[in-house]
Amino acid sequence: MKLGRLNHVGVATPSIEAAIAYWRDVMGAVKIHEPFDMPSQGVKVCFVDTPGENGTAGTQIELIEPLGADSPIHGFLAKNPAGGQHHMCYEVPDIHAARAEFLAMGKKVLGEPRIGAHGTLIFFVHPRDMGGVLTEIMETPKGDGTH
Amino acid sequence: MKLGRLNHVGVATPSIEAAIAYWRDVMGAVKIHEPFDMPSQGVKVCFVDTPGENGTAGTQIELIEPLGADSPIHGFLAKNPAGGQHHMCYEVPDIHAARAEFLAMGKKVLGEPRIGAHGTLIFFVHPRDMGGVLTEIMETPKGDGTH
Repeated sequence: MKLGRLNHVGVATPSIEAAIAYWRDVMGAVKIHEPFDMPSQGVKVCFVDTPGENGTAGTQIELIEPLGADSPIHGFLAKNPAGGQHHMCYEVPDIHAARAEFLAMGKKVLGEPRIGAHGTLIFFVHPRDMGGVLTEIMETPKGDGTH
Repeated sequence: MKLGRLNHVGVATPSIEAAIAYWRDVMGAVKIHEPFDMPSQGVKVCFVDTPGENGTAGTQIELIEPLGADSPIHGFLAKNPAGGQHHMCYEVPDIHAARAEFLAMGKKVLGEPRIGAHGTLIFFVHPRDMGGVLTEIMETPKGDGTH
């Protein structure tokens, strides 16, 4: 595959409410989106925009808070109580082609493609095959270009 | 301060040579810069470009490998032998103004500004004050816009 845009960096937090205050008051974020629940993934999510070059959209920060008792984020926060960097997400033009390529390379793809936080299909690849980084692959949103 | 561009995500690795092969052959990176040593920081560094929107420069991946026995990366790799996400770096227009702001907010700034991997002044802020993320602040390179 050809490397696509780094859509977002996922950052786990024990409290999206506190994280929003941090991003607004400490880091000076101008655009913080409305948080929303993704019960299917066991997470509450909130995107923070960072600026790209020349007024383009930069890589987003995806704040993720555990949702429900079975959330996969509980284990991460048990090891990192203050939160921390959780995953990195790259865009591809075709999610099924990308999944086939990762499987052909022997990478541990975690499940079938499913709808992600931006409304397009995504899958994760196990960090053990990806330099220790939990890696999300997402299909680029089509049409509006606003991600 | 006002949130600036996410210049790079630092990813620690036990081997930049192996990481370069991964970024080229698995992730399909088109532009991988020449690795170089930063003895003052105890790291060997290699930048990988990711594409931004509309042909702009995206956020870079900064591969960092321990250099020397006292490298701060040894401790990270002891906990994460395969490597992993290490820090996030945001640009500011004025490094001294940014440092004064973080200090005024009571954040634990790690040392005086020093020359970073892009040749401009940088400092780090302790993860305990930054949502668990080791955060680098760097002055935007001036002039060429290529970062």
